[in-house]
Amino acid sequence: MELDRIARLAGGGGGKVLLYVLDGLGGLPLEPGGPTELEAARTPNFDELARGGTCGLHDPVAPGITPGSGPGHLALFGYDPLVYETGRGVLEALGIEFPLGPGDIAVRANFCTVDAQGRVTDRRAGRISTEEAAPLAAQLDGIELDGARCSVRHVKEHRFVLVLHPDLASGDGVDDTDPGQTGQPPRAPCARDAGSEATARLLAAWLKAAAERLADHPRANMTLLRGVSSKPDWPLFEEVFGMRAAAAAAYPMYRGVARLVGMDARTAPDGARPLVDALRARLAEHDFFFLHFKPPDKAGEDGDFDRKVAAIEEADAIVPELVDAGPDVILVTGDHSTPATMRAHSWHPVPFLIHGGPARHDAATSFGETACRTGAHGRVRGCELMRLAAASAGRLAKFGA
Amino acid sequence: MELDRIARLAGGGGGKVLLYVLDGLGGLPLEPGGPTELEAARTPNFDELARGGTCGLHDPVAPGITPGSGPGHLALFGYDPLVYETGRGVLEALGIEFPLGPGDIAVRANFCTVDAQGRVTDRRAGRISTEEAAPLAAQLDGIELDGARCSVRHVKEHRFVLVLHPDLASGDGVDDTDPGQTGQPPRAPCARDAGSEATARLLAAWLKAAAERLADHPRANMTLLRGVSSKPDWPLFEEVFGMRAAAAAAYPMYRGVARLVGMDARTAPDGARPLVDALRARLAEHDFFFLHFKPPDKAGEDGDFDRKVAAIEEADAIVPELVDAGPDVILVTGDHSTPATMRAHSWHPVPFLIHGGPARHDAATSFGETACRTGAHGRVRGCELMRLAAASAGRLAKFGA
Repeated sequence: MELDRIARLAGGGGGKVLLYVLDGLGGLPLEPGGPTELEAARTPNFDELARGGTCGLHDPVAPGITPGSGPGHLALFGYDPLVYETGRGVLEALGIEFPLGPGDIAVRANFCTVDAQGRVTDRRAGRISTEEAAPLAAQLDGIELDGARCSVRHVKEHRFVLVLHPDLASGDGVDDTDPGQTGQPPRAPCARDAGSEATARLLAAWLKAAAERLADHPRANMTLLRGVSSKPDWPLFEEVFGMRAAAAAAYPMYRGVARLVGMDARTAPDGARPLVDALRARLAEHDFFFLHFKPPDKAGEDGDFDRKVAAIEEADAIVPELVDAGPDVILVTGDHSTPATMRAHSWHPVPFLIHGGPARHDAATSFGETACRTGAHGRVRGCELMRLAAASAGRLAKFGA
Repeated sequence: MELDRIARLAGGGGGKVLLYVLDGLGGLPLEPGGPTELEAARTPNFDELARGGTCGLHDPVAPGITPGSGPGHLALFGYDPLVYETGRGVLEALGIEFPLGPGDIAVRANFCTVDAQGRVTDRRAGRISTEEAAPLAAQLDGIELDGARCSVRHVKEHRFVLVLHPDLASGDGVDDTDPGQTGQPPRAPCARDAGSEATARLLAAWLKAAAERLADHPRANMTLLRGVSSKPDWPLFEEVFGMRAAAAAAYPMYRGVARLVGMDARTAPDGARPLVDALRARLAEHDFFFLHFKPPDKAGEDGDFDRKVAAIEEADAIVPELVDAGPDVILVTGDHSTPATMRAHSWHPVPFLIHGGPARHDAATSFGETACRTGAHGRVRGCELMRLAAASAGRLAKFGA
């Protein structure tokens, strides 16, 4: 359902909604028939919310599709990731909290090595260390082109973000310059449409200026550009759902995605406890609060089943205090599954619970993948959860007469 | 799935389908864990259909969206309400059974009060009584403009319907004139597109003529226009599903929506019993029959749980006679939920059962929200039910070779 149609139904009145995201929540059992990480965890507080509320499973993007963190969160914010697609450059900029403005063009860039003939001999500059690469990135910052200022921020090892601030609006339809293999020269920036030709020219000029500044470095003597993209012009969360929205997250990526849709995102220290403080401090002046808890995903990515269980238990422990802070509707879920057995994000649907608002009884008496399958909501798409939460908070008017 | 693709599969042969709509059927328990209205009702006949058929839950519009009666019924007729959206003016005209023709432009209008400077002082003319307003509406009927005839029909209290019959086709993209607050003059009718400018001019001329006729009335001395819309040019039900379709309903609104898609809709007296007579009298010459039963919704809107239970039991009692009338497939459901505890339509998915045709067994041994969640169909969109019913009646050919 299109966001502008939801906006027409969202009057502005209603209760407060808390979205509590346990990153990578969904999991898999260690052996057939065994419990998942969430099912193995002792979660008396989530279980109580599940008993008093309603449960289900959601597909953040679509069945069978493994979501990245950006699409996973956009879905939870109500934005269909198949419609609202973010460019890689923008996501990389969000990940280091670089403040993109309208018209800015973000590029996911990295150092590489070229030989005397200009052919790429190492696409990652020998996986140059952060210590060695950071000063080189600093050297590339602030190049002035005829038609654009340019910013560079180092990310990690060989990776950095390039942001063009063009004097005149220009498109982001420019192909990657990475040849994808060694032995070839980098491709020239090539515009896919007439409206992006100025951007391609600016990027070519920037590449030339950057190569001059890197000429004396033995390994990182050239750069490759990917994911050329500009900050999307999407409806803001507040415009769609009529809720003043705040966010607290320890990791910049998640604050970045929240800001992309206009949330007032702040940094929270590591751990679950600081999320309680964040909610208490700022729930009064907001209608919607997004709390992000990263550890389950990290443990899953590390293949550490027990640490993921412990992380989920840590997230569970603060629930009574979150409830006390006074949200009317609480939505607990993950942005995707990260089974420890897979050491990676996966496509498996993600358990969720909604507590608060008028609801039917369901069979889920605990919070877990198996129980959620018997829940009142069945299996829905991730981007539908915000509608269910907003409806539960009494925020959506009738569609049609 | 687009209606023209369904039409290519619907060959014309097959069994007869009965759609039996209990308006506002879905409900909520009075207390957590308790039965809903449908579950509290003694419905031996629906339960028997559920045992012999298959069950599920449907979202008339989309998860989290509360449907109005128009969209809810269009969904049951197979028309996706997110695609087939009806204007407010058209719905208001349907609600009083005004026969809209092609090219007619319907407007939801109401009396208001303006001061000597033309500023609105009461947007509803002091909620003028039906007795006082009806003669005023009659006075406005039949205004002849240069370019259109105009009809006015009173609805209730301050509300009436204005229908333009323009001499030349003109668009319905004209903004509301209601300023939304007092202290402002009504807005002039403003076209959103070039094709609707003639309509805006006609409406402005009508407003002037109407104001002259109302000049001497102390309160209802002006009118406000909303929901300018023309009868949609949609594929007819018979073209889509290949079934000659009839309808019987006690309320004009539902006959109106049925006629909008080309059904032969007739008035039935109040109560469930007359629906049996309607079906018996006209099933022979039709392939599809829509019976509408309003009382569960009215009781729900009144917050009367017990009366809603009784209404559902009344609807259940006639089932043996409906079965005897000989439809091959029976689809029983609601157009939306109207939980008595909420005294309003709600977004909660609606139970349905399909009886007849080759089907799998499912776990639903009674007709209710909880049982339907374990049904063979799971959770589907409302507009998919007609496909399931038509397929069960052997009416849809294979898609592709």
